Amino acid sequence: VSERPMSEIGGSDANSITVRGLDLATELMGRISFGEMTFLLSAGRQPTQGEARLFDAVLVSLAEHGLTPSVLSARLTYTGAPESLQGAVAAGLLGAGSVFLGPVGDTAVFLAELVARAGGDEDALRRSVREAVATAVAEERRVPGLGHPIHRETDPRTPRLYEIAEECELLGPHMRALEIVSAEFAAATHRKLPINGAGAAGAALVDLGFDPKITRGFALVARAAGLVAHLAEEGRNPIGMRVWQQTENHSKRRE
Amino acid sequence: VSERPMSEIGGSDANSITVRGLDLATELMGRISFGEMTFLLSAGRQPTQGEARLFDAVLVSLAEHGLTPSVLSARLTYTGAPESLQGAVAAGLLGAGSVFLGPVGDTAVFLAELVARAGGDEDALRRSVREAVATAVAEERRVPGLGHPIHRETDPRTPRLYEIAEECELLGPHMRALEIVSAEFAAATHRKLPINGAGAAGAALVDLGFDPKITRGFALVARAAGLVAHLAEEGRNPIGMRVWQQTENHSKRRE
Amino acid sequence: VSERPMSEIGGSDANSITVRGLDLATELMGRISFGEMTFLLSAGRQPTQGEARLFDAVLVSLAEHGLTPSVLSARLTYTGAPESLQGAVAAGLLGAGSVFLGPVGDTAVFLAELVARAGGDEDALRRSVREAVATAVAEERRVPGLGHPIHRETDPRTPRLYEIAEECELLGPHMRALEIVSAEFAAATHRKLPINGAGAAGAALVDLGFDPKITRGFALVARAAGLVAHLAEEGRNPIGMRVWQQTENHSKRRE
Amino acid sequence: VSERPMSEIGGSDANSITVRGLDLATELMGRISFGEMTFLLSAGRQPTQGEARLFDAVLVSLAEHGLTPSVLSARLTYTGAPESLQGAVAAGLLGAGSVFLGPVGDTAVFLAELVARAGGDEDALRRSVREAVATAVAEERRVPGLGHPIHRETDPRTPRLYEIAEECELLGPHMRALEIVSAEFAAATHRKLPINGAGAAGAALVDLGFDPKITRGFALVARAAGLVAHLAEEGRNPIGMRVWQQTENHSKRRE
Repeated sequence: VSERPMSEIGGSDANSITVRGLDLATELMGRISFGEMTFLLSAGRQPTQGEARLFDAVLVSLAEHGLTPSVLSARLTYTGAPESLQGAVAAGLLGAGSVFLGPVGDTAVFLAELVARAGGDEDALRRSVREAVATAVAEERRVPGLGHPIHRETDPRTPRLYEIAEECELLGPHMRALEIVSAEFAAATHRKLPINGAGAAGAALVDLGFDPKITRGFALVARAAGLVAHLAEEGRNPIGMRVWQQTENHSKRRE
Repeated sequence: VSERPMSEIGGSDANSITVRGLDLATELMGRISFGEMTFLLSAGRQPTQGEARLFDAVLVSLAEHGLTPSVLSARLTYTGAPESLQGAVAAGLLGAGSVFLGPVGDTAVFLAELVARAGGDEDALRRSVREAVATAVAEERRVPGLGHPIHRETDPRTPRLYEIAEECELLGPHMRALEIVSAEFAAATHRKLPINGAGAAGAALVDLGFDPKITRGFALVARAAGLVAHLAEEGRNPIGMRVWQQTENHSKRRE
Repeated sequence: VSERPMSEIGGSDANSITVRGLDLATELMGRISFGEMTFLLSAGRQPTQGEARLFDAVLVSLAEHGLTPSVLSARLTYTGAPESLQGAVAAGLLGAGSVFLGPVGDTAVFLAELVARAGGDEDALRRSVREAVATAVAEERRVPGLGHPIHRETDPRTPRLYEIAEECELLGPHMRALEIVSAEFAAATHRKLPINGAGAAGAALVDLGFDPKITRGFALVARAAGLVAHLAEEGRNPIGMRVWQQTENHSKRRE
Repeated sequence: VSERPMSEIGGSDANSITVRGLDLATELMGRISFGEMTFLLSAGRQPTQGEARLFDAVLVSLAEHGLTPSVLSARLTYTGAPESLQGAVAAGLLGAGSVFLGPVGDTAVFLAELVARAGGDEDALRRSVREAVATAVAEERRVPGLGHPIHRETDPRTPRLYEIAEECELLGPHMRALEIVSAEFAAATHRKLPINGAGAAGAALVDLGFDPKITRGFALVARAAGLVAHLAEEGRNPIGMRVWQQTENHSKRRE
């Protein structure tokens, strides 16, 4: 009897590299896009054309959002260690926690539980959502997937992601549940909060079949692309030192 | 007089997010692939169809290579801190230094210097390469882009990447220079080392117009996709603890 | 009106560096130990002799525990990026989460809440502990501060830390509460679990006056010292590659 | 024949933890300071009283230097992921590269090579230093250990560290060589640059017997203590968001 191999993702020998049972050089390179590769690596199967389009849209939506704390952290790390690009990218990713980008995964986990509990029964889902929203409101906790500090009315990524999911015929139960969450929150509080882009992305990723616990990972891949661009710019037009000096001066002035 | 804005990559206001002058929701999501987005973010312009195909092939080639030290590091970090996926991905990326994945950038920098110095003169290039190889051999240093611990004859990614570059009519001076490096090394040492996949990727990225110093960054984006897949698997089929126990036992046995 | 300065920890000008209102060169270097400095930095005041001894004992107890997953992660990162020592140390620290070292802080937070709620009333404390233990047992959650995978009977660090705290007359309410937690767990389950070293350390740090939420930080400082020693050894006697090869071979054998 | 055990630093069994051959609970906790433990872990032996004092002074000198880029990076990471203290500390350490803190190790390596080459001959050392300085000046490279952006005349840590080393009778060949470097630089350029604190620390660490390549590690341990204090303060008095907003506004104003 043989035990399971340690990893089913890939392996290599002297002449070939295999990923998910496919030959990297002849069956993947030049034949699939990087988004499809990212899907294949985690899902263990290639996406359909529609899945690839929705998945790409999710990654595109999460890649860049200006000079965020995470970008500043990466740039300031680059200031001190320009020879270790990997350290600067890692520093940037480390800020993707419960406050920034983490909401992708938090919303995914939240919705997956609600949808699983309802077992396909629309009324049961609505009841579960109502309870969950009421509890969050009572405990003065944020409802996962709702609200954004900058995009107070509408997060422009959200309606577009729903539109693309619709076009791909992939608008599934988790994206729908998130709309119910938004409606129930408005009904309970008489206050409208937009579905944020992170939440919509998390919902779409679960509808695409990914384990909710891993969805934060795709936000990290997407944001890595943005961080590399910022570090390329930092090399040509450094702002890390400027941010430092402003803070120092600001600190001095107030002493 | 106005100074340059702090970042030219992107920004946002209440109703929109802009990336490289384009509206994220209406002009990018659903219209470009994640590979194209990654190119756009760093290059500041969208790739042609051929450029997108070659760039995707580079990212696909670098995303996964089995249970590498970097993957083991990410998995062992997840063992200790499963609630911080970003920490595990960051730990995995931190191993992308001079030994692993770093060669993408090292080769890029090495070739860019040779090609720039030759100024388009084929003979000058060949002379420069010959000297650089002779110096490296004399100093017992590795020649960037050559050799691989597992793929001793041929790195399967290399010929495929050249083929795709050829098909896209993008086989440029840096990829050609790397072939000359390989030939001159064989001539100088009577020993054939394959062009490794990392080196070929680095050469292709410079031919695509990227700053050599930033090319390591694309290896990081690619590898992040592989790391997320490994962490998804680690959640279902943990090997971190097993690796730890094997090492502990091994250590004990020898004491 | 003047706002508070941005940081009260320290600052510098052309001729001096100030830490917590003291001159670094003339009042701290050569006068206080590194443990006292670590205490001063976070507490904002110098420790008494007894506090310094207990604090040092806590740091000493947490610095090293063999080839842990965190150490392996640091060593494997060093394998790939030996030029970036900071990356290898960072990778090692990133594994200090909910499973390893994190329990220092989790126990601190858990005990601080119980002690605060009881408000100095011994009976109220015992009742709160009993409830908390009962809840954890019912929900099949671990009780913070109890149990260790290797030290199944007694974690040797624990009785020693209590002894030192006693000698320093610093055995405070949180260390006492942890003993009550252990006793109540045994009473509720008829199963004895040792107080683990991480938990005892967390309790001692709160008794020393530190904010429970920051106690994990001292575990990180302590472990950084151990990681540097392992990386020094890795430079002379590399095991990263061996761990990798064992895993690869192991993986191959099973395919 | 038996192979060497995997690690000689430490290990544990059910009832004990051993570090460098000593019992952690009975022989180390409560008996040695954390500075002595840090020395023991890497050196494999306990320091003398003088060595412990000089080593502590080095760590104290490197622990804190205000709102550095590294501290800002840690605080900004905490803003995004307050639940992962280890990620914020790691992000702070990742900036300890060639520009900040790295000079500890760079100076150590530079001096160790000069001293080793001179083989105890004072004249030979002076000649070697002269050449090295001349080369650096000719190539417009910085001379390791000299100069500081803030402390332009004297880095206050430097004379104090020399004083302590003198008092401990541990002012060794590497600290002396660094003085020669400073003198030769002044002679060659008619410009006086102070010996910086990082360089003096690096020289002292090599005089204490540590491998130059690992000296950067002690700067990391020291700085970790400072980072934890900053994160404790960040929890009470957040500046991450303020730094972000200043940067955003600044960026906006200029567009």
